[in-house]
Amino acid sequence: MEGFITFDARNSCPFTVEPDAFEGVKRVAKKVAADFEKVCGKLPEITEKPENAPGLVLFATLGKSPLTDALIREGKFDPSPIRGKREVYQIKLIDKPFDGVSKALLVCGGDKRGTIYGMFALSEFIGVSPLHFWGDAEPQKRERIEITGKIETVSKEPSVKYRGFFINDEWPCFGEWTFARYGGFTAEVYDHVFELLLRLKGNYLWPAMWTSCFALDGPGSLNEELADIYGVIVGASHHEPCLRASEEWDKVRGPDSVYGNDWNYNKNKNGLLRYWEDALKRSGKYEKLITIGMRGERDSSMLGEEGEFLRENINLLKDIIKSQRELIKKHVNQNLDEVPQLLALYKEVEEFFYGDEKVAGLKDWDELDGVICMFCEDNYGFMRTLPWAEIRGRKGGFGMYYHFDYHGGPISYEWMPSTSFERTWEQMCMAYDYGIKDVWIVNVGDLKFNEVPLAYFMELAYDFEKWGTNSPNSIDGYTKIWTEKNFPLADANVRDKIADVLHGYIRMNAMRRPEALNSSIYHPCHYLEADRMLARAGEIEKANEEVYSALGANEKDAYYSMIYFPAKASVNLLRMHLYAGKNRHYAEQGKKIANHYAALVTECIEKDRALHNEFALFKTGKWKGMELEQHIGFIKWNEDNSRYPLRLQVEPAYKPRLVVSRKDREEVYSKTYGNPMTVLVDDFLYADNDEVILEIANDGIGSLEYEIKPEKEYDWLQISSLKGTVESQEEIILRCDRQKLAGETQNARLLIKDSETAVAVEIKARKPVAQGLPPMTFLENSGLVVMEANHFCGKKDAADKAAGFIELKNYGRSGSACGGGGMKVFPTTAVFGERDEKPSLSYRFLVEESGDYTVEVWMSPANPLENKRPLRFTLTAQGGQEQVITAVPADFMAGSHSDKRWNEGALDQIRISRGQIKLEKGVREIAIGALEAGLVLERVLVYRTGCGPLPSYLGPPESFFVR
Amino acid sequence: MEGFITFDARNSCPFTVEPDAFEGVKRVAKKVAADFEKVCGKLPEITEKPENAPGLVLFATLGKSPLTDALIREGKFDPSPIRGKREVYQIKLIDKPFDGVSKALLVCGGDKRGTIYGMFALSEFIGVSPLHFWGDAEPQKRERIEITGKIETVSKEPSVKYRGFFINDEWPCFGEWTFARYGGFTAEVYDHVFELLLRLKGNYLWPAMWTSCFALDGPGSLNEELADIYGVIVGASHHEPCLRASEEWDKVRGPDSVYGNDWNYNKNKNGLLRYWEDALKRSGKYEKLITIGMRGERDSSMLGEEGEFLRENINLLKDIIKSQRELIKKHVNQNLDEVPQLLALYKEVEEFFYGDEKVAGLKDWDELDGVICMFCEDNYGFMRTLPWAEIRGRKGGFGMYYHFDYHGGPISYEWMPSTSFERTWEQMCMAYDYGIKDVWIVNVGDLKFNEVPLAYFMELAYDFEKWGTNSPNSIDGYTKIWTEKNFPLADANVRDKIADVLHGYIRMNAMRRPEALNSSIYHPCHYLEADRMLARAGEIEKANEEVYSALGANEKDAYYSMIYFPAKASVNLLRMHLYAGKNRHYAEQGKKIANHYAALVTECIEKDRALHNEFALFKTGKWKGMELEQHIGFIKWNEDNSRYPLRLQVEPAYKPRLVVSRKDREEVYSKTYGNPMTVLVDDFLYADNDEVILEIANDGIGSLEYEIKPEKEYDWLQISSLKGTVESQEEIILRCDRQKLAGETQNARLLIKDSETAVAVEIKARKPVAQGLPPMTFLENSGLVVMEANHFCGKKDAADKAAGFIELKNYGRSGSACGGGGMKVFPTTAVFGERDEKPSLSYRFLVEESGDYTVEVWMSPANPLENKRPLRFTLTAQGGQEQVITAVPADFMAGSHSDKRWNEGALDQIRISRGQIKLEKGVREIAIGALEAGLVLERVLVYRTGCGPLPSYLGPPESFFVR
Repeated sequence: MEGFITFDARNSCPFTVEPDAFEGVKRVAKKVAADFEKVCGKLPEITEKPENAPGLVLFATLGKSPLTDALIREGKFDPSPIRGKREVYQIKLIDKPFDGVSKALLVCGGDKRGTIYGMFALSEFIGVSPLHFWGDAEPQKRERIEITGKIETVSKEPSVKYRGFFINDEWPCFGEWTFARYGGFTAEVYDHVFELLLRLKGNYLWPAMWTSCFALDGPGSLNEELADIYGVIVGASHHEPCLRASEEWDKVRGPDSVYGNDWNYNKNKNGLLRYWEDALKRSGKYEKLITIGMRGERDSSMLGEEGEFLRENINLLKDIIKSQRELIKKHVNQNLDEVPQLLALYKEVEEFFYGDEKVAGLKDWDELDGVICMFCEDNYGFMRTLPWAEIRGRKGGFGMYYHFDYHGGPISYEWMPSTSFERTWEQMCMAYDYGIKDVWIVNVGDLKFNEVPLAYFMELAYDFEKWGTNSPNSIDGYTKIWTEKNFPLADANVRDKIADVLHGYIRMNAMRRPEALNSSIYHPCHYLEADRMLARAGEIEKANEEVYSALGANEKDAYYSMIYFPAKASVNLLRMHLYAGKNRHYAEQGKKIANHYAALVTECIEKDRALHNEFALFKTGKWKGMELEQHIGFIKWNEDNSRYPLRLQVEPAYKPRLVVSRKDREEVYSKTYGNPMTVLVDDFLYADNDEVILEIANDGIGSLEYEIKPEKEYDWLQISSLKGTVESQEEIILRCDRQKLAGETQNARLLIKDSETAVAVEIKARKPVAQGLPPMTFLENSGLVVMEANHFCGKKDAADKAAGFIELKNYGRSGSACGGGGMKVFPTTAVFGERDEKPSLSYRFLVEESGDYTVEVWMSPANPLENKRPLRFTLTAQGGQEQVITAVPADFMAGSHSDKRWNEGALDQIRISRGQIKLEKGVREIAIGALEAGLVLERVLVYRTGCGPLPSYLGPPESFFVR
Repeated sequence: MEGFITFDARNSCPFTVEPDAFEGVKRVAKKVAADFEKVCGKLPEITEKPENAPGLVLFATLGKSPLTDALIREGKFDPSPIRGKREVYQIKLIDKPFDGVSKALLVCGGDKRGTIYGMFALSEFIGVSPLHFWGDAEPQKRERIEITGKIETVSKEPSVKYRGFFINDEWPCFGEWTFARYGGFTAEVYDHVFELLLRLKGNYLWPAMWTSCFALDGPGSLNEELADIYGVIVGASHHEPCLRASEEWDKVRGPDSVYGNDWNYNKNKNGLLRYWEDALKRSGKYEKLITIGMRGERDSSMLGEEGEFLRENINLLKDIIKSQRELIKKHVNQNLDEVPQLLALYKEVEEFFYGDEKVAGLKDWDELDGVICMFCEDNYGFMRTLPWAEIRGRKGGFGMYYHFDYHGGPISYEWMPSTSFERTWEQMCMAYDYGIKDVWIVNVGDLKFNEVPLAYFMELAYDFEKWGTNSPNSIDGYTKIWTEKNFPLADANVRDKIADVLHGYIRMNAMRRPEALNSSIYHPCHYLEADRMLARAGEIEKANEEVYSALGANEKDAYYSMIYFPAKASVNLLRMHLYAGKNRHYAEQGKKIANHYAALVTECIEKDRALHNEFALFKTGKWKGMELEQHIGFIKWNEDNSRYPLRLQVEPAYKPRLVVSRKDREEVYSKTYGNPMTVLVDDFLYADNDEVILEIANDGIGSLEYEIKPEKEYDWLQISSLKGTVESQEEIILRCDRQKLAGETQNARLLIKDSETAVAVEIKARKPVAQGLPPMTFLENSGLVVMEANHFCGKKDAADKAAGFIELKNYGRSGSACGGGGMKVFPTTAVFGERDEKPSLSYRFLVEESGDYTVEVWMSPANPLENKRPLRFTLTAQGGQEQVITAVPADFMAGSHSDKRWNEGALDQIRISRGQIKLEKGVREIAIGALEAGLVLERVLVYRTGCGPLPSYLGPPESFFVR
């Protein structure tokens, strides 16, 4: 067809890659050719020059392509949009480009990676997902590929300069897998890793280093060579300076070694310098981002950590860096500014960066001016200190080391994704806005199962302008595109459901990392929390199965590999712990239904094993090994001593015995002498509480007959059953029909009886009191008001700073589990003094009793963004003084396992601050003001002091409010 | 044979009972005749007058026997030793008593009960146990019974006037049993009850009254008539005044009843008076001890209990008592002094007895002068207030209501005996010494299984001079006689073992009532407490089985009925809870050996059922019903909601995993990074601690190989195994041979390893330091000294008061479980002022470090013996001031379920008081002085303040001391 380049099962246009082209381009051409074969069945021929053909595809790089030069000369191609830019490409259809060729598709990069990105863009254009290997995503098979003008594009420069990921904590999964398939951490497996990185438009990699040495495992230098061919810039983590892996040290150290035996710069300076020098000589020739500095052996701190050592450590580190840079100068490049270098401010090194009042830190040392300083979040996905305004413009720029996987305290997480896209968006936007644009690297653990979040992370780094701070709440949009690319044949509604399952299970995991779950997290009865979580898990499972059934053969594997299995296994794990919690709850109540839950726990344990075994067999073992991560009940920072939930067995009593309880309370009510025990149901006094569930249990053998006798007839009260037989436990639902309530508070009394026991139920109800109240007025329940952050009644921006709160949908625990959302101030770099006009949110509620009230402000467990600055906000009760409340004090040690406060926030994914106020009866408001943008407000609780909520993980459901 | 009266299978002497004799004597003659038949196979003939015979047996009562009158006249019998005395008898062989009779055995009573006691004394003489029916005790079968001069005796007057027991809380056991066998609480079953009472030389009974009416159930008046015939004096418990059972009220009350409908003297005075009057008319003609006063319905208090009601209540009670006594005067006897009456000072009535500063109590009311005032212990076997010196001589005298069974708070006990004989001795001696000599009644619940303790109680009441305060530590002597009587054919060593089992299981139960056991009582690991208790249970079980095997057919049933079954079931119950504790302990440690203990719990649950079912079939169901008492895991005051222990199931981890722990600690030591975790074994620093047990567990699947590598060779250290394979858990015993220790403190270090884990063990040892220390010097263990009370180094009596401490062997928890004994001051009525010379005990120990020390004084959970007086003692550290320490404060409410302090002592069977002292390094002494005799000292702990013992039930074992 005129104007098109076409491919089909019989004919395909050749791919032309000139002899001058980069070797990486030549190799990628073969991968792209294979992609074309996948789609239409015929492998395009690769030629070195144009031959007579209706069309061809030319992969070229400016300056490395005589053919392109010719096209430029002939005015057929204008390279100016890409010339001199980083990692950009242009794709253009050119008529009659060469003699005997009627049409060419030119994929031209400004540099090597630009070309390669363009080539993989072509693959994506024909429907091949970047995740086709790692996510088992199959393109739509087509009889014919038509390449039309729609493909023409000029790409942008990537937003972040170095973008990539870190394969880490790679045993047992990645290690077992690659040893079985690729004989180790060889160039064979890295070919797949590099390809993924490049398809995701990344350029930077920290290779696996737990037990492997990238520079030696190729075998030999094959890994480094291959990376260089592809244009993959290899870096190393914070404790592997000068291009040498941590593991290498153990191979060469020794009493008789030329490198010496001590990883101690004071004792073994010459040995260490020689060790680094030899690596720079060996590997400095490749494109690298060279880590400088030093940490102690195996990721420990270098010297004692006591205050008096600060100066010594800083001086030592300066000495080390200076020597390292001299070696770089000597062996890599005389012009140090041309050698990208990185200093990671990890753990104690951060302290050396800042120094203190007495000791100047590394930040003030001009030697580092051209070096990228890399910050790190708290390992749990929350930023710690970020570049403050004064240093934001430094020449060397900044990096961020982010974690989708972490092995360390309080509890490691690696098994399945547990950082929501929303969290990654919020936190990485903040990093970017604070000036971190040079390096973004994310720890992806074993890589497998993190491929989907990784793709998002890479996209955000590549095109921050499109997906970043400018686009709050863009996860849905991103996911829509992603599902289209990866599930091309799926119906639109199935794709929507895929998005639901993907984010559903990850947000569920993000409420608490799976490894940190146990039977004591979600409350087994208060606020029916366990049941709500079971329902949530059930919904995810239902959608998951529906999607899997609905997908055709082309999509099933991708879905299974990227979503179905992680979601199913995550749901099952959560259930295991929820059932175990209910098992213990009922066992402590003495009820034999506990045994039913013990059996369910056993089922989950068995299913967990079965699911993982099934995954190992998927695609005849393609991923075998990747399923081996331990993930159940960690009690140390790692899996050592991890525990399956206990199962408690109840022996039923010798005869049927009636026990009554509220489903949402721990207390049991049973036989007594004199007046029967009385269950109080005062819920119907409060708006929107129209249903209470009672449990009628038989904690003995056999079955019992019960009967419920209302004292009189109550037309406003429905009781789901008035008699029955209980083997183990039955639920009775009490429903209040408020419409039928006349006048003021009404009482009802029921007797629940078997042959020898009577338990009374006292019920109180009244009509709703919402009439005449202004919109967004919340009503209390037993003196407690629970308000999701996004249900404010008023919002005030700081006009002069152009800063204000914006709602983040699906954000945090409130957004995931409580029907709310997060409220965060933008721009993210905003900071306010106590006397500034601050952005604020107001919340309105009806106070039924004047008195002392406690306000609980639930926020994301954010850390202070500036070193040693507390994280604070203001609280103002209507008619009261503004109070400044410290959510995180100045001595808080974000990311430090030894700080219990940080541990709690990180594990619970919430931080609760409290303030005391006085309130008069009536409709009242409180305001929460921001002193900075770091925190995200999730919910606000107000209660009569002393009448706080019952223990639970998520807290009470939101109160009723007037809309 | 000359001088003998003989019986054999062919010939027996006739029993002569004259027509004038009491009907009761006539009936008992038949029972005694049946006893003779049991022994030698021939039933003696009962005649009304002597007939020609070589011999006869004459049963007579002074004044009711013309034949005895004749013998007296003829000078053949001197009645003076018994004439005019209460309940005495004389047994005498008389030559040629009557024409044609060569020899007569005269059993002559001074009154009816005297005669009957004499008759049953004859039965005992020929080997028939008083427990032949209730305890299935079979006499030795003999070819020939020879009655020789050895039988001649003059009995003493009983020590206590009214002696008997209370059948109480009689459902389901006694009730099911008697309804099935005797059609209810009929005269048929009471015939057995009365017979037991009389054989035990008792005279007083409170009949069953939960659902029965003694006066109506005979059927009709048969019960009352039969009691009167036998001379059994029927009383009633504290809330059944004027000879009417509580249950009768419900049968006759009503809105139209002549008695009215309200059990309320204010509202229904006339009705109640008529109700009582009719009962006195009906039942007053029999020999009775009439209860007066009033309590609320169903054993509740009568009016509100608030302070302002005291006067009203006292006045009301006075009004009631006055009216009741007028009715007694009218319908029973004009001379009230001739009518025995009893006022029970139970619960709140005691308060009315004492009154307060403003209101005179009943004690000061002369109307009650001739009435027996009955005190009650705290329902748990410990005296409460006793008659203080000023009132001790009152005319009416005193009674004591004691409990072997109790249904009430904190936890009921009825299943198996759980009050040790030693406790009964100590407490009832105190009652007697304080002047309680008129009524002793003991609540025996269903009677069955309490027959042996009851026999002891009755013997103590009958012959206090022989067994009471004069005879401390006489339980062994009593038991020796008792086993001879009840197991006549058993070998002496088997009888000794019977005594061991009998007291062994009861003392074990007495350490904590069986119903109050649960898996949290005995500590599963600290001080190896659960193991020590398991060993104890094992010893009892072993002896129990040995006795059962060794006994011949004649003794087997008695043993099974009275001891074997109660002991076996008690041992099994204790094991169930101990195993459940270990199950939880190991489950909390994450060890799969927990599952082994869960299975053992299941075995015990099943065995408990099997044992009880077996008992129901014993002797083709003779006791069927008596086995039905609930006895497992009470969590309320009664069996409602009682719980079997929970069983926790551990799922082993995915691979073998090494976990090391000390058997006596909760902490586990496992894989870690860097230096291995270290188990500290410093026990060998302390005298007499030569063995420590380590547990090497595999908390994962499969098995693991371990190896123990000592850092070097230690000749003083033995390790029971240096390598092995662990499926679940192995024990490694570390033994220290002190003889091989040279010089000062030595250290050893072991590494316990499997393929990936190493755990270190740090061992410290030194030579004993006991040389040169004075005798009775205790040595510390980790700053803690534990001294059993009977291991004092000095004892000082209060010379002027002739009072001093005496050791009570096998007393309390120390005597039962800790190898110690109790120390109690005698005389039991001794009281000392703070400045008096007091009896005291000194304890000596070596202080290794000067400083602040805490002294814990462990005493029996005794109550104050005088109303509102605290229970105190003195503590003096060498060189320090005497401190007065209050063990029980003045506001203590003994026996009141609402006083947590009392509950704790009653349940734990110990009360711990603490004092603070300073001690200098060196050999030091402390002295404990008594301010009264009520308390029994069990043990003394001294420790550096803050270094107290680990949590446990029994506390640490006794420390080593120099002998």
